Amino acid sequence: MKIAVLGTGMVGQALAARLSVLGHAVTVGTRDPEATLARTEPDGMGNPPFSAWATEHPDVRLASFADAAASAELVVNATSGFGAMPALEQAGADNLAGKVLIDISNPLDFSNGFPPSLFVKDTDSLGEQIQRAFPDTRVVKALNTLTAHLMVNPKELGAASTIFIAGNDTAAKTTVTELLQSFGHSDVIDLGDITGARGTEMLLPVWLRLMGTLGTANFNFSIVR
Amino acid sequence: MKIAVLGTGMVGQALAARLSVLGHAVTVGTRDPEATLARTEPDGMGNPPFSAWATEHPDVRLASFADAAASAELVVNATSGFGAMPALEQAGADNLAGKVLIDISNPLDFSNGFPPSLFVKDTDSLGEQIQRAFPDTRVVKALNTLTAHLMVNPKELGAASTIFIAGNDTAAKTTVTELLQSFGHSDVIDLGDITGARGTEMLLPVWLRLMGTLGTANFNFSIVR
Repeated sequence: MKIAVLGTGMVGQALAARLSVLGHAVTVGTRDPEATLARTEPDGMGNPPFSAWATEHPDVRLASFADAAASAELVVNATSGFGAMPALEQAGADNLAGKVLIDISNPLDFSNGFPPSLFVKDTDSLGEQIQRAFPDTRVVKALNTLTAHLMVNPKELGAASTIFIAGNDTAAKTTVTELLQSFGHSDVIDLGDITGARGTEMLLPVWLRLMGTLGTANFNFSIVR
Repeated sequence: MKIAVLGTGMVGQALAARLSVLGHAVTVGTRDPEATLARTEPDGMGNPPFSAWATEHPDVRLASFADAAASAELVVNATSGFGAMPALEQAGADNLAGKVLIDISNPLDFSNGFPPSLFVKDTDSLGEQIQRAFPDTRVVKALNTLTAHLMVNPKELGAASTIFIAGNDTAAKTTVTELLQSFGHSDVIDLGDITGARGTEMLLPVWLRLMGTLGTANFNFSIVR
């Protein structure tokens, strides 16, 4: 499948690399490809610049948000919460129309430091905001509840764990479930329509707290039943 | 141990029954014991009246919130979210001072129907509000993330699952952990101080959604790591 991954951070890199290994034609979307490749310093978190990752992944193309979305059959939103809407607007409603959009973003607001607050919660969600802004796009909220490398390599954990999906389009959720299964996810729970994103986005506060308590991001929720 | 369980609903009944079986001297606290025992009709959810439960549990005493708390060494808050603060005020700060208070309540607001919103979230929590209102009480948030009968009989699920605790007093958390282990909980994760209650209270939206999707309340979160 031709897949666009919007966002050049850890989540975008993890998704793009894994999808490429699985045989998909992957384009990473960014605001300004030249500027992205020109950066040679580690980011604020100490991660190497995207250019270093790109050199190691020659099969993955880099393009503008619009070019990446235009050529894709399926789009992954791997931006930060505040970055989601601007990135999708640059990708363009026409380029996203009719396509499945996997939304991994979380509405985290770090403006008052750590822990972040949520800029939308309990009566709405970022997933719903995106679906309302792009009504012709088939948004599926997924993968926003675990760390990047476990999103695409869940079997690194010793036991099976759960991925939640939510979206209005049943066929889109089937496509996403198959993609998740190709990553190794064996327990995908469909929470129903896109309003189910509220609950999964509100998992972030306990997720962040657990990361601090456990001293690692290598964990995931499982629903035991 | 002498334990007061504040609240006569499903959660209070489940806790009181199990604690009594485990050999504790249990008093259930209610606003008006006579009025509670006088009710002979099922409640709005179709559950039998407390009087029927009381007849089947003669070892459990019923008393006012204040009387129950006064005679207890440990207190369990098993009221609804909006009921928590009034019940604890009636229990009385003096009667709660120095004692461990297990807070199971969740800040659910059903005034606009289902799903409920949360009347406190992400930058504060009901657990913190209770701790601030009763600074001499050793509040431990626990058990607010699963259905009543699994709180006290977790082994009914085929696999181990997780209970989160949060509180400012380390010795209180040790006491609560031992009590949880006596119920059968083998994975208790300490989220640190009482601000950890934010994350666990914010699990309720996805919990409620899962109950609808799975068609049962017989599930629990597990943290796979």
